[in-house]
Amino acid sequence: MMRNVYVAGTGSTTFGKHAGRSIESLAVDACAQAIVESGIDRARIGAVYLGNFISGPLNGKEVLAGLVAEQLGLTGIPCTKVEGACASGGIAMRHACLMVATGLCDAVLVVGVETMTHASTTEMTTALNCAMDNEYDGLSGLTFPGLFGLAWRAHAQQYGTTREDIAAVVIKNKANGLKNPLAQMGADLTLEQVCASALIADPLQLFDCCPPSDGAAAVVVCAKDLLSQSPHTPQIRVMASVQTSGSARISQHPDLCSFDATVHAAQQAYKQSGLQPSDIDLVELHDCFSIAEIIDSEDLGLVPRGEGGRWAAQGRTGMQGDIAINPSGGLLAKGHPVGATGVGQIVEVVWQLRGEHTNQVADAAIGMTHNLGGTGVACTVHILGREA
Amino acid sequence: MMRNVYVAGTGSTTFGKHAGRSIESLAVDACAQAIVESGIDRARIGAVYLGNFISGPLNGKEVLAGLVAEQLGLTGIPCTKVEGACASGGIAMRHACLMVATGLCDAVLVVGVETMTHASTTEMTTALNCAMDNEYDGLSGLTFPGLFGLAWRAHAQQYGTTREDIAAVVIKNKANGLKNPLAQMGADLTLEQVCASALIADPLQLFDCCPPSDGAAAVVVCAKDLLSQSPHTPQIRVMASVQTSGSARISQHPDLCSFDATVHAAQQAYKQSGLQPSDIDLVELHDCFSIAEIIDSEDLGLVPRGEGGRWAAQGRTGMQGDIAINPSGGLLAKGHPVGATGVGQIVEVVWQLRGEHTNQVADAAIGMTHNLGGTGVACTVHILGREA
Repeated sequence: MMRNVYVAGTGSTTFGKHAGRSIESLAVDACAQAIVESGIDRARIGAVYLGNFISGPLNGKEVLAGLVAEQLGLTGIPCTKVEGACASGGIAMRHACLMVATGLCDAVLVVGVETMTHASTTEMTTALNCAMDNEYDGLSGLTFPGLFGLAWRAHAQQYGTTREDIAAVVIKNKANGLKNPLAQMGADLTLEQVCASALIADPLQLFDCCPPSDGAAAVVVCAKDLLSQSPHTPQIRVMASVQTSGSARISQHPDLCSFDATVHAAQQAYKQSGLQPSDIDLVELHDCFSIAEIIDSEDLGLVPRGEGGRWAAQGRTGMQGDIAINPSGGLLAKGHPVGATGVGQIVEVVWQLRGEHTNQVADAAIGMTHNLGGTGVACTVHILGREA
Repeated sequence: MMRNVYVAGTGSTTFGKHAGRSIESLAVDACAQAIVESGIDRARIGAVYLGNFISGPLNGKEVLAGLVAEQLGLTGIPCTKVEGACASGGIAMRHACLMVATGLCDAVLVVGVETMTHASTTEMTTALNCAMDNEYDGLSGLTFPGLFGLAWRAHAQQYGTTREDIAAVVIKNKANGLKNPLAQMGADLTLEQVCASALIADPLQLFDCCPPSDGAAAVVVCAKDLLSQSPHTPQIRVMASVQTSGSARISQHPDLCSFDATVHAAQQAYKQSGLQPSDIDLVELHDCFSIAEIIDSEDLGLVPRGEGGRWAAQGRTGMQGDIAINPSGGLLAKGHPVGATGVGQIVEVVWQLRGEHTNQVADAAIGMTHNLGGTGVACTVHILGREA
């Protein structure tokens, strides 16, 4: 019944500081690239989905889907902002895929966008805490670095994961980021440098945390017959598109070392695609903190439970490893303009599957993305595949 | 191909001041009512759509769809907040209908919610201006009362609409509100009282403006086979569900007396349902200001162009008129908890079509809702019909 869905066009600003740029203008830049690259006539675009988290508190701007569409000359069609904390971009992608799969639209524009670097640390922390259950966890005084610091301690206790294991994630992602021209904070780091960086929320140190970022990413998804407009071969098909939810309250998490929303999303994505973890060549996953990459890689079934730290330390999640995790540099090095992240992950995977990436995973045929909101309250997983 | 969609359950808090209540708790109240009334097992609910506009700026809370679902025991399923300024609730309703119509879900929970009355006037004005294009119209210093004041002047100039005509809208809606126990500000007003109320944005006076409100409304939509769970007869079918967009910038509006987004949404809704304006027995439309009701009624094709004011003055839009407009009291009298409004309109129409309303339109068989965001940047129109 459902139609196949393809990614026909991609666009992205750099992730980093875009001082003086309006949030709309960043989104328009990414969208214009994606539309042009798709080769699809704008009149065929039937809807716009925009992922954004905190433009209201940080920019005094809402209804961004309509504002951005107007600047692109797409006025008239349904334009919807979707929000699910840090998973907002992935949720936008899923809704676009559903519109095409069900035949409601032939092509849909997806964009994720955020601007954050203009805000003070206090403003930003307050805004990011909008992703928490502020009637419960918020009252405890926790912030997200605090929450992921707790997860680190639990993982260390349960599985023996060490500071050195976790530093391996940082060193890998920062090195990958150096090869990605879109990345905000690529770096050639030593273990000593990671361990010497400032303490943020014990045991998390500075390099364990993703930076705040400005940026936008966009894709055009479409039905197969519209792909002929796009000059790009191979064709990239969306093999799975899944959205789940989970408890926002850490008191409700039976295990601090796992997010149910990710586990369920991955299970559904494997089922939808008919694939298994060993089929995945690369994944762009939600490493908002170094420890998050380890947890995510286990929750996604890509690494055995409890082995995430050791796999990182052994290089098994590197460019030549068993599974390439975050070849883009991930949130840690590419940056995390919150609402843009989930769409940026799709862009990265498409470029890998086309064989066009500046940090190319050899022979990448199947790629996954994983976008997680808050403490696992919202999650999306996508699997994309190369067609000859 | 598409399946019929029905409204199986409704729920709503009163609209007004709910001091000390969290935004989540209001949403949970409305949802719990809707789920219980639907008789549908919560395990059959496949998704949650939550419409909200400015909880980020006003409450420091986002990711509300997930937070509310968790309190309802619905964790696991896709939970999405959608935002399109004042049309957020209608957009949530449309997405729920699409999920059921396409067969992706058998039942979906829709909720709209907002809390505003705790905020200062400055905080609220700043937050409401998030619905504007702040790179363009915002710079002019306009606020929404100012914009609708301009529309009033244009309508008066083009069509001869008078202060008395427009007061008739206020008097009617305030009187309807008196008969609606959910309404915040029903009143028995005279023309003299309306004309003596404080000037807000010339020529708009106090009673021409909807109040800020707290409140939540919810519905459960489902496929026909799940309706058997619901004790309610007659069955209420969604005959049209349309979402459009238009220019946010008033400089781009060819006519200040009309919103393209409404005109196009209405045309599509009539086409989808196979109905025409004369088939509509009642409409809940977006009277954020008195003049808006006049413009909306013309844009929806329910009243001849330019005649909206005179029809109101002649009682043709009253309870015994040609078309009953806003029997609930509308935004002017029922209140306008922004994200809740579009869902509240659906609840009102369902009760009318069931023949259960406290301000019942005689023999109501077909009802329409109209939810407009900003200066016409987003719009939804729904048509609901009674089945024997």
